[in-house]
Amino acid sequence: MKRTKKERQRLLMETIKENPFVTDEQLASQFGVSVQTIRLDRMELSIPELRERIKDVAEKNYENEVKSLPLDEVIGEIIDIELDEKALSIFDVKEEHVFQRNGIARGHHLFAQANSLAVAVINDELALTVKSNVVFVKPVKVGDRVITKAIVRGQDHEKNRTYIDVLSTVNNETVFKGEFEMYRTKGKGDTE
Amino acid sequence: MKRTKKERQRLLMETIKENPFVTDEQLASQFGVSVQTIRLDRMELSIPELRERIKDVAEKNYENEVKSLPLDEVIGEIIDIELDEKALSIFDVKEEHVFQRNGIARGHHLFAQANSLAVAVINDELALTVKSNVVFVKPVKVGDRVITKAIVRGQDHEKNRTYIDVLSTVNNETVFKGEFEMYRTKGKGDTE
Repeated sequence: MKRTKKERQRLLMETIKENPFVTDEQLASQFGVSVQTIRLDRMELSIPELRERIKDVAEKNYENEVKSLPLDEVIGEIIDIELDEKALSIFDVKEEHVFQRNGIARGHHLFAQANSLAVAVINDELALTVKSNVVFVKPVKVGDRVITKAIVRGQDHEKNRTYIDVLSTVNNETVFKGEFEMYRTKGKGDTE
Repeated sequence: MKRTKKERQRLLMETIKENPFVTDEQLASQFGVSVQTIRLDRMELSIPELRERIKDVAEKNYENEVKSLPLDEVIGEIIDIELDEKALSIFDVKEEHVFQRNGIARGHHLFAQANSLAVAVINDELALTVKSNVVFVKPVKVGDRVITKAIVRGQDHEKNRTYIDVLSTVNNETVFKGEFEMYRTKGKGDTE
Protein backbone atom coordinates (compact mmCIF):
# COMPACT_ATOMS: atom_id res chain seq x y z
CA MET A 1 0.00 0.00 0.00
CA LYS A 2 1.29 3.39 -0.97
CA ARG A 3 1.79 6.14 1.58
CA THR A 4 -0.38 9.24 1.30
CA LYS A 5 1.41 12.36 0.09
CA LYS A 6 1.02 13.92 3.53
CA GLU A 7 2.57 10.90 5.24
CA ARG A 8 5.42 10.79 2.71
CA GLN A 9 6.17 14.49 3.21
CA ARG A 10 6.21 14.07 6.97
CA LEU A 11 8.70 11.19 6.70
CA LEU A 12 10.72 13.15 4.16
CA MET A 13 11.14 16.07 6.57
CA GLU A 14 12.18 13.69 9.34
CA THR A 15 14.66 11.87 7.15
CA ILE A 16 16.33 15.07 5.94
CA LYS A 17 16.45 16.45 9.47
CA GLU A 18 18.22 13.31 10.61
CA ASN A 19 20.62 13.24 7.67
CA PRO A 20 20.93 16.58 5.84
CA PHE A 21 23.30 14.97 3.31
CA VAL A 22 20.86 12.50 1.84
CA THR A 23 20.45 12.95 -1.93
CA ASP A 24 17.16 13.24 -3.83
CA GLU A 25 18.05 9.95 -5.53
CA GLN A 26 18.41 8.19 -2.19
CA LEU A 27 15.11 9.66 -0.98
CA ALA A 28 13.32 8.61 -4.18
CA SER A 29 14.54 5.07 -3.79
CA GLN A 30 13.67 5.03 -0.08
CA PHE A 31 10.09 6.19 -0.66
CA GLY A 32 9.54 4.31 -3.91
CA VAL A 33 8.74 7.47 -5.89
CA SER A 34 10.46 9.37 -8.70
CA VAL A 35 13.23 11.92 -8.14
CA GLN A 36 10.86 14.52 -9.63
CA THR A 37 8.30 13.77 -6.91
CA ILE A 38 10.94 14.28 -4.23
CA ARG A 39 11.88 17.64 -5.80
CA LEU A 40 8.24 18.76 -5.80
CA ASP A 41 7.86 17.62 -2.19
CA ARG A 42 10.93 19.63 -1.22
CA MET A 43 9.60 22.71 -2.99
CA GLU A 44 6.24 22.44 -1.25
CA LEU A 45 8.00 21.98 2.09
CA SER A 46 10.58 24.73 1.36
CA ILE A 47 13.49 22.34 1.93
CA PRO A 48 16.52 23.57 -0.02
CA GLU A 49 18.40 21.23 -2.36
CA LEU A 50 21.34 19.20 -1.09
CA ARG A 51 24.01 21.62 -2.31
CA GLU A 52 22.35 24.48 -0.42
CA ARG A 53 21.87 22.37 2.69
CA ILE A 54 25.59 21.56 2.70
CA LYS A 55 26.49 25.22 2.23
CA ASP A 56 24.21 26.21 5.10
CA VAL A 57 25.94 23.80 7.41
CA ALA A 58 29.40 24.84 6.23
CA GLU A 59 28.57 28.52 6.70
CA LYS A 60 28.47 28.09 10.45
CA ASN A 61 32.02 29.30 9.99
CA TYR A 62 34.28 26.57 11.26
CA GLU A 63 37.22 28.87 10.62
CA ASN A 64 36.88 30.06 14.22
CA GLU A 65 36.35 26.55 15.54
CA VAL A 66 39.25 24.61 14.17
CA LYS A 67 42.38 25.37 16.15
CA SER A 68 45.06 23.02 14.92
CA LEU A 69 45.21 24.18 11.28
CA PRO A 70 43.74 26.76 8.87
CA LEU A 71 40.48 25.51 7.40
CA ASP A 72 41.78 25.53 3.83
CA GLU A 73 44.34 22.91 4.86
CA VAL A 74 41.61 20.41 5.63
CA ILE A 75 41.08 17.86 2.84
CA GLY A 76 37.33 17.67 2.23
CA GLU A 77 34.74 20.04 3.64
CA ILE A 78 34.06 20.11 7.38
CA ILE A 79 30.33 19.87 8.03
CA ASP A 80 30.26 19.53 11.78
CA ILE A 81 32.78 19.67 14.55
CA GLU A 82 32.90 19.49 18.33
CA LEU A 83 36.50 19.96 19.37
CA ASP A 84 38.03 17.00 21.21
CA GLU A 85 34.80 15.07 20.63
CA LYS A 86 33.95 14.45 16.99
CA ALA A 87 34.01 15.90 13.49
CA LEU A 88 32.39 15.22 10.14
CA SER A 89 33.57 16.03 6.62
CA ILE A 90 32.55 15.29 3.07
CA PHE A 91 34.81 14.75 0.08
CA ASP A 92 33.59 14.48 -3.50
CA VAL A 93 35.76 12.14 -5.53
CA LYS A 94 36.74 13.69 -8.87
CA GLU A 95 38.78 12.54 -11.87
CA GLU A 96 42.01 13.84 -10.38
CA HIS A 97 41.64 11.62 -7.31
CA VAL A 98 41.45 8.26 -9.10
CA PHE A 99 43.78 5.90 -10.91
CA GLN A 100 43.49 6.65 -14.64
CA ARG A 101 43.39 2.95 -15.35
CA ASN A 102 40.47 1.76 -13.27
CA GLY A 103 38.71 4.88 -11.91
CA ILE A 104 39.30 3.76 -8.31
CA ALA A 105 40.15 6.50 -5.81
CA ARG A 106 43.79 6.50 -4.76
CA GLY A 107 44.31 5.46 -1.17
CA HIS A 108 46.22 8.55 -0.14
CA HIS A 109 43.23 10.83 -0.82
CA LEU A 110 41.02 8.85 1.56
CA PHE A 111 43.91 8.83 4.00
CA ALA A 112 44.30 12.61 3.61
CA GLN A 113 40.63 13.29 4.32
CA ALA A 114 40.70 11.08 7.42
CA ASN A 115 44.05 12.34 8.66
CA SER A 116 43.24 16.02 8.26
CA LEU A 117 39.94 15.51 10.08
CA ALA A 118 41.86 13.82 12.91
CA VAL A 119 44.10 16.89 13.07
CA ALA A 120 41.18 19.34 12.87
CA VAL A 121 39.19 17.78 15.72
CA ILE A 122 42.00 18.40 18.19
CA ASN A 123 41.49 21.44 20.39
CA ASP A 124 45.10 22.51 20.35
CA GLU A 125 47.50 24.70 18.39
CA LEU A 126 49.75 21.77 17.55
CA ALA A 127 48.58 18.34 16.47
CA LEU A 128 50.80 15.83 14.67
CA THR A 129 50.10 12.28 13.56
CA VAL A 130 52.25 9.68 15.32
CA LYS A 131 50.75 6.40 14.13
CA SER A 132 47.93 5.27 11.99
CA ASN A 133 46.31 1.94 11.10
CA VAL A 134 43.93 2.09 8.16
CA VAL A 135 41.80 -0.35 6.21
CA PHE A 136 40.54 0.27 2.68
CA VAL A 137 37.32 -1.70 2.92
CA LYS A 138 35.74 -1.08 -0.48
CA PRO A 139 36.87 0.71 -3.64
CA VAL A 140 35.63 4.29 -4.02
CA LYS A 141 34.88 5.63 -7.51
CA VAL A 142 34.61 8.93 -9.36
CA GLY A 143 31.41 10.74 -8.37
CA ASP A 144 31.23 9.10 -4.95
CA ARG A 145 30.64 11.38 -1.97
CA VAL A 146 32.72 10.20 0.95
CA ILE A 147 31.33 11.10 4.37
CA THR A 148 33.96 10.79 7.08
CA LYS A 149 33.43 10.82 10.83
CA ALA A 150 36.22 11.24 13.34
CA ILE A 151 35.51 10.34 16.96
CA VAL A 152 37.91 11.04 19.81
CA ARG A 153 38.19 7.72 21.60
CA GLY A 154 40.61 8.57 24.37
CA GLN A 155 43.58 10.50 25.64
CA ASP A 156 46.84 9.76 27.40
CA HIS A 157 47.67 12.99 29.21
CA GLU A 158 51.14 11.91 30.33
CA LYS A 159 52.22 11.15 26.79
CA ASN A 160 50.24 14.03 25.23
CA ARG A 161 48.45 11.58 23.00
CA THR A 162 44.92 11.62 21.61
CA TYR A 163 43.38 8.53 20.00
CA ILE A 164 40.88 9.02 17.21
CA ASP A 165 38.72 6.56 15.29
CA VAL A 166 37.77 7.50 11.75
CA LEU A 167 35.09 5.92 9.59
CA SER A 168 34.34 6.83 5.96
CA THR A 169 31.19 5.79 4.14
CA VAL A 170 29.67 6.13 0.67
CA ASN A 171 25.88 5.74 0.63
CA ASN A 172 26.02 4.41 4.18
CA GLU A 173 28.47 1.67 3.22
CA THR A 174 31.82 1.64 4.97
CA VAL A 175 34.67 2.24 2.50
CA PHE A 176 37.54 3.13 4.85
CA LYS A 177 38.33 2.99 8.54
CA GLY A 178 41.30 4.12 10.51
CA GLU A 179 42.79 4.61 13.95
CA PHE A 180 44.98 7.65 14.47
CA GLU A 181 47.34 8.28 17.36
CA MET A 182 47.98 12.03 17.54
CA TYR A 183 50.54 14.08 19.41
CA ARG A 184 49.36 17.39 20.87
CA THR A 185 51.05 20.00 23.02
CA LYS A 186 48.55 19.83 25.86
CA GLY A 187 45.69 17.54 26.87
CA LYS A 188 41.97 18.16 26.84
CA GLY A 189 40.90 20.25 29.78
CA ASP A 190 44.41 21.33 30.67
CA THR A 191 44.81 24.96 31.63
CA GLU A 192 47.24 27.08 29.69
CA MET B 1 95.02 15.63 11.16
CA LYS B 2 93.59 16.66 7.83
CA ARG B 3 93.28 14.19 4.98
CA THR B 4 95.39 14.78 1.89
CA LYS B 5 93.46 15.95 -1.15
CA LYS B 6 94.13 12.62 -2.86
CA GLU B 7 92.79 10.67 0.09
CA ARG B 8 89.72 12.93 0.32
CA GLN B 9 88.98 12.53 -3.38
CA ARG B 10 89.27 8.75 -3.12
CA LEU B 11 86.81 8.70 -0.20
CA LEU B 12 84.55 11.14 -2.04
CA MET B 13 84.28 8.83 -5.04
CA GLU B 14 83.54 5.87 -2.79
CA THR B 15 80.90 7.78 -0.85
CA ILE B 16 79.09 8.96 -3.99
CA LYS B 17 79.27 5.49 -5.52
CA GLU B 18 77.64 4.07 -2.40
CA ASN B 19 74.99 6.79 -2.17
CA PRO B 20 74.50 8.72 -5.44
CA PHE B 21 71.93 10.98 -3.71
CA VAL B 22 74.28 12.55 -1.20
CA THR B 23 74.37 16.37 -1.46
CA ASP B 24 77.48 18.56 -1.72
CA GLU B 25 76.49 20.03 1.65
CA GLN B 26 76.45 16.60 3.27
CA LEU B 27 79.82 15.75 1.69
CA ALA B 28 81.34 19.04 2.86
CA SER B 29 80.20 18.39 6.41
CA GLN B 30 81.39 14.77 6.29
CA PHE B 31 84.88 15.71 5.11
CA GLY B 32 85.16 18.91 7.10
CA VAL B 33 85.76 21.09 4.03
CA SER B 34 83.78 23.82 2.26
CA VAL B 35 81.05 23.13 -0.27
CA GLN B 36 83.23 24.92 -2.82
CA THR B 37 86.03 22.40 -2.23
CA ILE B 38 83.63 19.53 -2.83
CA ARG B 39 82.50 21.15 -6.11
CA LEU B 40 86.10 21.50 -7.25
CA ASP B 41 86.78 17.89 -6.27
CA ARG B 42 83.78 16.74 -8.29
CA MET B 43 84.93 18.75 -11.30
CA GLU B 44 88.42 17.29 -11.13
CA LEU B 45 86.96 13.80 -10.79
CA SER B 46 84.30 14.43 -13.50
CA ILE B 47 81.48 13.51 -11.11
CA PRO B 48 78.27 15.26 -12.23
CA GLU B 49 76.25 17.32 -9.76
CA LEU B 50 73.46 15.72 -7.74
CA ARG B 51 70.65 16.83 -10.07
CA GLU B 52 72.41 15.20 -13.03
CA ARG B 53 73.16 12.04 -11.08
CA ILE B 54 69.47 11.70 -10.23
CA LYS B 55 68.47 12.31 -13.85
CA ASP B 56 70.93 9.65 -15.03
CA VAL B 57 69.38 7.11 -12.74
CA ALA B 58 65.83 8.12 -13.61
CA GLU B 59 66.57 7.95 -17.32
CA LYS B 60 66.84 4.19 -17.13
CA ASN B 61 63.23 4.58 -18.22
CA TYR B 62 61.09 3.02 -15.55
CA GLU B 63 58.04 3.75 -17.69
CA ASN B 64 58.46 0.28 -19.19
CA GLU B 65 59.16 -1.33 -15.83
CA VAL B 66 56.26 -0.24 -13.68
CA LYS B 67 53.17 -2.26 -14.51
CA SER B 68 50.56 -1.34 -11.97
CA LEU B 69 50.24 2.38 -12.78
CA PRO B 70 51.52 5.06 -15.16
CA LEU B 71 54.79 6.53 -13.91
CA ASP B 72 53.35 10.04 -13.56
CA GLU B 73 50.92 8.68 -10.96
CA VAL B 74 53.78 7.79 -8.65
CA ILE B 75 54.29 10.38 -5.87
CA GLY B 76 58.03 11.09 -5.78
CA GLU B 77 60.57 10.00 -8.35
CA ILE B 78 61.38 6.32 -8.78
CA ILE B 79 65.14 5.79 -8.73
CA ASP B 80 65.37 2.03 -8.73
CA ILE B 81 62.92 -0.80 -9.05
CA GLU B 82 62.95 -4.59 -9.19
CA LEU B 83 59.37 -5.72 -9.63
CA ASP B 84 58.03 -7.86 -6.80
CA GLU B 85 61.30 -7.35 -4.95
CA LYS B 86 62.03 -3.75 -4.03
CA ALA B 87 61.80 -0.14 -5.16
CA LEU B 88 63.34 3.20 -4.21
CA SER B 89 62.00 6.72 -4.68
CA ILE B 90 62.92 10.24 -3.65
CA PHE B 91 60.59 13.07 -2.76
CA ASP B 92 61.68 16.66 -2.21
CA VAL B 93 59.54 18.39 0.39
CA LYS B 94 58.39 21.82 -0.82
CA GLU B 95 56.28 24.63 0.67
CA GLU B 96 53.05 23.13 -0.65
CA HIS B 97 53.62 19.90 1.28
CA VAL B 98 53.87 21.37 4.77
CA PHE B 99 51.58 22.89 7.38
CA GLN B 100 51.72 26.68 6.98
CA ARG B 101 51.92 27.04 10.69
CA ASN B 102 54.95 24.98 11.59
CA GLY B 103 56.64 23.98 8.31
CA ILE B 104 56.23 20.28 9.11
CA ALA B 105 55.36 18.00 6.19
CA ARG B 106 51.76 16.81 6.24
CA GLY B 107 51.41 13.11 6.94
CA HIS B 108 49.42 12.30 3.84
CA HIS B 109 52.30 13.29 1.53
CA LEU B 110 54.66 10.83 3.21
CA PHE B 111 51.87 8.29 3.11
CA ALA B 112 51.32 9.01 -0.61
CA GLN B 113 54.98 8.50 -1.48
CA ALA B 114 55.10 5.22 0.44
CA ASN B 115 51.74 3.97 -0.81
CA SER B 116 52.40 4.72 -4.47
CA LEU B 117 55.78 3.00 -4.24
CA ALA B 118 54.05 -0.04 -2.74
CA VAL B 119 51.68 -0.02 -5.74
CA ALA B 120 54.49 0.51 -8.26
CA VAL B 121 56.64 -2.39 -7.04
CA ILE B 122 53.90 -4.90 -7.77
CA ASN B 123 54.35 -6.81 -11.02
CA ASP B 124 50.71 -6.79 -11.96
CA GLU B 125 48.17 -4.74 -13.89
CA LEU B 126 46.00 -4.26 -10.80
CA ALA B 127 47.27 -3.44 -7.33
CA LEU B 128 45.09 -1.95 -4.59
CA THR B 129 45.88 -1.15 -0.98
CA VAL B 130 43.90 -3.21 1.52
CA LYS B 131 45.48 -2.26 4.85
CA SER B 132 48.27 -0.13 6.06
CA ASN B 133 49.97 0.52 9.39
CA VAL B 134 52.23 3.54 9.44
CA VAL B 135 54.39 5.34 11.97
CA PHE B 136 55.50 8.95 11.61
CA VAL B 137 58.81 8.67 13.45
CA LYS B 138 60.23 12.16 13.08
CA PRO B 139 58.92 15.43 11.63
CA VAL B 140 60.00 16.18 8.05
CA LYS B 141 60.59 19.81 7.03
CA VAL B 142 60.66 21.97 3.90
CA GLY B 143 63.81 21.26 1.90
CA ASP B 144 64.20 17.72 3.22
CA ARG B 145 64.80 14.99 0.67
CA VAL B 146 62.86 11.88 1.64
CA ILE B 147 64.34 8.62 0.37
CA THR B 148 61.82 5.79 0.52
CA LYS B 149 62.49 2.08 0.14
CA ALA B 150 59.77 -0.50 -0.43
CA ILE B 151 60.65 -4.15 0.12
CA VAL B 152 58.32 -7.01 -0.75
CA ARG B 153 58.24 -9.10 2.40
CA GLY B 154 55.87 -11.88 1.40
CA GLN B 155 52.87 -13.08 -0.53
CA ASP B 156 49.70 -15.00 0.16
CA HIS B 157 48.81 -16.55 -3.19
CA GLU B 158 45.42 -17.89 -2.11
CA LYS B 159 44.25 -14.47 -0.98
CA ASN B 160 46.06 -12.60 -3.79
CA ARG B 161 47.86 -10.53 -1.19
CA THR B 162 51.35 -9.02 -1.24
CA TYR B 163 52.95 -7.64 1.94
CA ILE B 164 55.33 -4.72 1.60
CA ASP B 165 57.52 -2.94 4.16
CA VAL B 166 58.31 0.70 3.50
CA LEU B 167 60.98 2.80 5.18
CA SER B 168 61.55 6.53 4.57
CA THR B 169 64.67 8.37 5.67
CA VAL B 170 66.05 11.90 5.58
CA ASN B 171 69.85 12.08 5.87
CA ASN B 172 69.89 8.42 6.87
CA GLU B 173 67.51 9.01 9.77
CA THR B 174 64.22 7.14 9.75
CA VAL B 175 61.27 9.54 9.46
CA PHE B 176 58.46 7.17 8.48
CA LYS B 177 57.80 3.47 8.31
CA GLY B 178 54.88 1.50 7.10
CA GLU B 179 53.49 -1.96 6.36
CA PHE B 180 51.20 -2.27 3.36
CA GLU B 181 48.92 -5.18 2.54
CA MET B 182 48.15 -5.04 -1.17
CA TYR B 183 45.56 -6.83 -3.29
CA ARG B 184 46.67 -7.94 -6.76
CA THR B 185 44.96 -9.90 -9.48
CA LYS B 186 47.57 -12.63 -9.67
CA GLY B 187 50.54 -13.74 -7.60
CA LYS B 188 54.23 -13.48 -8.36
CA GLY B 189 55.34 -16.13 -10.77
CA ASP B 190 51.83 -17.11 -11.79
CA THR B 191 51.33 -17.76 -15.48
CA GLU B 192 48.69 -15.76 -17.29
